[in-house]
Amino acid sequence: MRFLKGHGTENDFVILPDPDGELELTPSFVARLCDRRAGIGADGVLRAVRAKADPEAAGQDAEWFMDYRNGDGSVAEMCGNGVRVFARYLVDAGLAEPGEWNVATRSGPRPVALGADGDVRVDMGVPDYFGTSVATLGDREFPGVSVSVGNPHLACRVDEPVAVLDLGTAPGFDPAVYPHGVNVEFFRPVGDHHVEMRVHERGAGETRSCGTGTVAVAVAAALGLAGAEPVPPGRWTVDVPGGRVTVTLTGETAFLAGPAVLVAEGEVDPAALSTS
Amino acid sequence: MRFLKGHGTENDFVILPDPDGELELTPSFVARLCDRRAGIGADGVLRAVRAKADPEAAGQDAEWFMDYRNGDGSVAEMCGNGVRVFARYLVDAGLAEPGEWNVATRSGPRPVALGADGDVRVDMGVPDYFGTSVATLGDREFPGVSVSVGNPHLACRVDEPVAVLDLGTAPGFDPAVYPHGVNVEFFRPVGDHHVEMRVHERGAGETRSCGTGTVAVAVAAALGLAGAEPVPPGRWTVDVPGGRVTVTLTGETAFLAGPAVLVAEGEVDPAALSTS
Repeated sequence: MRFLKGHGTENDFVILPDPDGELELTPSFVARLCDRRAGIGADGVLRAVRAKADPEAAGQDAEWFMDYRNGDGSVAEMCGNGVRVFARYLVDAGLAEPGEWNVATRSGPRPVALGADGDVRVDMGVPDYFGTSVATLGDREFPGVSVSVGNPHLACRVDEPVAVLDLGTAPGFDPAVYPHGVNVEFFRPVGDHHVEMRVHERGAGETRSCGTGTVAVAVAAALGLAGAEPVPPGRWTVDVPGGRVTVTLTGETAFLAGPAVLVAEGEVDPAALSTS
Repeated sequence: MRFLKGHGTENDFVILPDPDGELELTPSFVARLCDRRAGIGADGVLRAVRAKADPEAAGQDAEWFMDYRNGDGSVAEMCGNGVRVFARYLVDAGLAEPGEWNVATRSGPRPVALGADGDVRVDMGVPDYFGTSVATLGDREFPGVSVSVGNPHLACRVDEPVAVLDLGTAPGFDPAVYPHGVNVEFFRPVGDHHVEMRVHERGAGETRSCGTGTVAVAVAAALGLAGAEPVPPGRWTVDVPGGRVTVTLTGETAFLAGPAVLVAEGEVDPAALSTS
């Protein structure tokens, strides 16, 4: 079975080319593939199938459908870094031209753009500011703002370098505000429209990068400067542990742009995965 | 650059075929390759070079030299699971016949054997019992025995299932006995000549498997039953978090046998590693 491995700011993926939609991905197979020691290892799998070959892409104006699976094998709707790596694969494999076009996803067609600088940009949709709340780490409290980017975030501004924070345990939050949990970001301004951040993802712990989290932080940073809605338009540089992205808030949507890199490609032996 | 990925009881490796010894491995390149998100990901790298093409293998009665590097890029002498995966690669690639032969390593020629059952056996050398000591976890003390298998181990028998132990923090030990640190194993008998174990490796934390650690545990289990030296010969089944191996104590040496699996192969792009 052919595969590629790539990452966007160290959020990494196994890509399975499947133009004609012939692969049957079971949750256990995906989990074995993503196992970092017994498999190839990744945060998730991106199956690349022509939109016309997959009923889930029906009606979407796109050539390719991104069948995204989490590392535990569960089906997921979208992944901001994943779709950027997916677009990089299509272009590098000669399956799409550089430029702007849609990728079909379970949350609808997602516009991507590949420029001459090598970065891949994706339209993340309209971030939704929905109030303030408080995160806790140990006995410290961190006021923050709630932002939905399809999934819920609590983005908290801090004064110290984010490297000194202990994210070894999950931050506390108000379950009345976030009944299904929340991704918590801590960010610090380090320059004009420039922040550094770390993120604790619900269910996953601290990660090297989180596409929706960078958008939430840009919204929180922009609101913090302006003091109130509406979110001022602007272009934010966001440093995550895995690298650097830019988030452009237009007032109507949010664009996430950054590196998307293919590292390796080859053949994986499904029998070796299942018997190890 | 061609690579393969494989593992022995989930101790995993990137194999770099280099028959003519043309690759120059820098520590930073090895570390990037072993990075689990920005690279391929592995515990270490096994460069496969013909013994006659590498001066480090001079004088060893072996066809192939295993140039083993730790995941951080540092040079290492030997790795019990690594040499088993290395032998599996040579046979699967048609570079060696099944049977018994030596692999050249930095600690000298290491005899391996590939049988019909798919397991790969390696002669780990003479384990050296050198007394008793005590490990601590939190406020609990665990008496154990000290065994050198090239590197130092403290193997402690416990009464509870090893799964319930908290190895999130490093066990304490007597620095006067282990001035360079020690690998600490906790094991519990679960049947006749059958134990389960977990291991905390110095410098690495808890791992899924540790070849020398399984030998140390077999020695400790055998001594525990007999009460004194010499170590009674016997064949031990050792369950580690990453799978199951057998350790055969002959009175003269110790053989480690278990699965060695190749999962994937392909091409890695060194430029993508260095610029990501």
